[in-house]
Amino acid sequence: MNRRMVCHTVGLIVLLEAVLMLPSLVTSLIYKNSCIQAFIWSILIALLLGGAMVAVARPRTKVLYAKEGFAITSLAWLFVSLVGALPFFLSKQIPNFIDAFFETVSGFTTTGASILNDVTALDKGLLFWRSFTHWVGGMGVLVFLMVFLSSFSDRTIHIIRAEMPGPTVGKLLPKVKDTAKILYIIYLVMTALLVIALLLSKMPLFDSLIHAFGTAGTGGFGIYSDSAASLTAAQQWIIAIGMLLFGINFNLYYLILIRRFRSAIRSTELWVYFGLVASAVTLCCINLSNVYHNISDLIRHSFFQVSSIVTTTGFSTVDFNLWPNLSKTVLLLLMFFGACAGSTAGGFKISRVILLFKNCGAEFRHLLHPRSINVLRFEGKSVESETRKSVTGYLALYTLCFFIIFFLVSFDSFDIETNFSAVAACFNNIGPGLGGVGPMSNYAAYSGFSKIMLSLAMLLGRLEIWPIIMTLVPSTWRGWRA
Amino acid sequence: MNRRMVCHTVGLIVLLEAVLMLPSLVTSLIYKNSCIQAFIWSILIALLLGGAMVAVARPRTKVLYAKEGFAITSLAWLFVSLVGALPFFLSKQIPNFIDAFFETVSGFTTTGASILNDVTALDKGLLFWRSFTHWVGGMGVLVFLMVFLSSFSDRTIHIIRAEMPGPTVGKLLPKVKDTAKILYIIYLVMTALLVIALLLSKMPLFDSLIHAFGTAGTGGFGIYSDSAASLTAAQQWIIAIGMLLFGINFNLYYLILIRRFRSAIRSTELWVYFGLVASAVTLCCINLSNVYHNISDLIRHSFFQVSSIVTTTGFSTVDFNLWPNLSKTVLLLLMFFGACAGSTAGGFKISRVILLFKNCGAEFRHLLHPRSINVLRFEGKSVESETRKSVTGYLALYTLCFFIIFFLVSFDSFDIETNFSAVAACFNNIGPGLGGVGPMSNYAAYSGFSKIMLSLAMLLGRLEIWPIIMTLVPSTWRGWRA
Repeated sequence: MNRRMVCHTVGLIVLLEAVLMLPSLVTSLIYKNSCIQAFIWSILIALLLGGAMVAVARPRTKVLYAKEGFAITSLAWLFVSLVGALPFFLSKQIPNFIDAFFETVSGFTTTGASILNDVTALDKGLLFWRSFTHWVGGMGVLVFLMVFLSSFSDRTIHIIRAEMPGPTVGKLLPKVKDTAKILYIIYLVMTALLVIALLLSKMPLFDSLIHAFGTAGTGGFGIYSDSAASLTAAQQWIIAIGMLLFGINFNLYYLILIRRFRSAIRSTELWVYFGLVASAVTLCCINLSNVYHNISDLIRHSFFQVSSIVTTTGFSTVDFNLWPNLSKTVLLLLMFFGACAGSTAGGFKISRVILLFKNCGAEFRHLLHPRSINVLRFEGKSVESETRKSVTGYLALYTLCFFIIFFLVSFDSFDIETNFSAVAACFNNIGPGLGGVGPMSNYAAYSGFSKIMLSLAMLLGRLEIWPIIMTLVPSTWRGWRA
Repeated sequence: MNRRMVCHTVGLIVLLEAVLMLPSLVTSLIYKNSCIQAFIWSILIALLLGGAMVAVARPRTKVLYAKEGFAITSLAWLFVSLVGALPFFLSKQIPNFIDAFFETVSGFTTTGASILNDVTALDKGLLFWRSFTHWVGGMGVLVFLMVFLSSFSDRTIHIIRAEMPGPTVGKLLPKVKDTAKILYIIYLVMTALLVIALLLSKMPLFDSLIHAFGTAGTGGFGIYSDSAASLTAAQQWIIAIGMLLFGINFNLYYLILIRRFRSAIRSTELWVYFGLVASAVTLCCINLSNVYHNISDLIRHSFFQVSSIVTTTGFSTVDFNLWPNLSKTVLLLLMFFGACAGSTAGGFKISRVILLFKNCGAEFRHLLHPRSINVLRFEGKSVESETRKSVTGYLALYTLCFFIIFFLVSFDSFDIETNFSAVAACFNNIGPGLGGVGPMSNYAAYSGFSKIMLSLAMLLGRLEIWPIIMTLVPSTWRGWRA
């Protein structure tokens, strides 16, 4: 294990975070918030800590293997969350550090689960920071770092692989740095377009930025206690369509950019995604026809909630916890799909679900004709047996982690619906669940222990489990030192 | 597909069922029940139908491959359930045929889920039949057939494999027929011992038989509306320990029989099973210490419920639906474990859970040292990569089926806890769930469609999914005919 390289890279991330806090500091200066000092202190601490880590651990070699990639990724996310919690904590607007940590993890992992009983009481600077973490976390903090650094070896693919969601990673361009740059440019432009659309719908600039960050990162932190319920119908439509678009694999946008429209449109995952959303909206519309008598309300609310949950964003225009049980079940099931791989969405990812189905089909054919050779095809390519194994293995790991955390959280004796959906909502980076953690409630009532477990669930979900487990097991750290 | 052989064997099973109905007919004669005629008609129909199937489809060759094994198994279970429902239906004591079918499937699959609002209203003959199906289904109807028939080819291992629960099948003896015989002898002797124990506790003979059938098959049908709540403490202890013993892999009893005690005691699955039960009982005892003030009640109720759920029996001495949420969650999680492979219990099976954990460990080592060779060991043997793949693949299939049925059942708009636990309880062959299908309630309120879906879930769970899917897909039936 190249420990120096791990420490060095995590230090760089912490330094980067100091820079990322500057827009929030500027916001608090503009609004003359009381949290100015908290931001200054946080930035200083980040600079000192990051600087020390970078300076102390000068790597003798820049070679990175898979395990260094895993360790860098999970430690980077841990440090970024710990340091990112400081503004909330130091400003005393979230006086409990565990709560501040939960809120920050929820931000970076684009979960959007909150412990705040009254979000409107927070300073604008802190609100900005809270939502900005969504935007940064959406595409990945390490991917962001790659954009600026060219000094890294070509092995950085291990880091990207650990941070990018989905069963396989498509390198768009031969160089990791160029891939990272292209992804962030697409991300930035799409976010800018969303901000413009919201401004045109007469939303103030600050609100537009916040909602754009929450939508682009598929996070879901808002600035009102009722999430997106008090926005106008037009604004709700903009956000609903925005969430849907940010749930699409960014590789497809790149394909459109280089005018390979046909390849983009042929994506199986894309059409399954659209089909899933269309079916879920139809089902909800039928089931809710007695709840909303105005047809435009019916369609808007159904589409908004479905889009929000399937993309694991978590905004809501209504308290879907009060919906009839069929619609609630539809939403609960959507929580486990997540949107497309390679998007900013969390969850299990639609491509994995497709691969699971295809894998069952292949096993069926194997049982029927034991000696025939089965080639599994997905997105026009044949799927390696390694990928097949990793998808079913991931499901096993996912299920085990899910039930272990569900069990641990059950010591807080809320009802089963609340606990189960809380873990589902955190593990899949959605935010609001059902019952006691529904869209109009929050996670404040959970014990400190459960909050830490749910924070862990969010990190496990965002980094797709393996990096964190690898980092937690001592044997990863043994062996070769640089 | 050797269709003649499939039809012939299923016919034999139906004939066997006519014989199996005789004890119930005798019971109804003894008690002079009004259901005598219904049994006579049912036996006649079974004889006619089975006789016709056997006579019409005389197989030209007795060769059986895996797909014939799958088809025979699932069709046998379907026919046995359809014919087995006749006594309930013809006697008009369960006037709706879907209800009668649900009850019979629930019996044979050893689920124990009931649609009866008042079980005490049923004739004794029908009560006997209802519980006797548990006993027959527990060890398997086809395994039972194998005991009597020696005319089958050696390929019958495909049938046993499709019917016996667990990731691998241990042939105890070189000949399938001998293995089947040994298993049934152990099963019979253990059931007889249980009946004697219950008689000694001053339970009447009829009641002893019913409870022994329910316990041995890990089924859970009783004769009182409050399940096992009105039994004496001693009787509850006997049943609780009985359930635990029938949840152990029968191969271990065979090992004890041939005096290989050390091999029997070394089973990993056995100790994980005991450890799981001990931990669950401890947790429940701590959590319930405010509910039951008498320590012997506390331990008995905790142990009984845990033993009942982990072995997927479904008897209950209290309404655990009223327990605090932590204990309810413990029970809900236990539902998914099931007891040991090769026992009469349903569920996912503890050996599969162990293999999943070990598989995650192996994958972890693979990520750490990609070029090392990982041998996975379980029960002293190395696990073939084929078995590893089949366990993770089974989890995928299990999860997909589970969520599809959960979704379909949700059209009956009960709350999520009820629907989720109903599917969990049927799919894992337990019986009672939580909420609206708790131990003191029943499945009567579900729609006909949901009852059929839940019956399908019970069959899928009992036969471990593949046989039924294979039978449902047309391409299985194509190809070679004998």
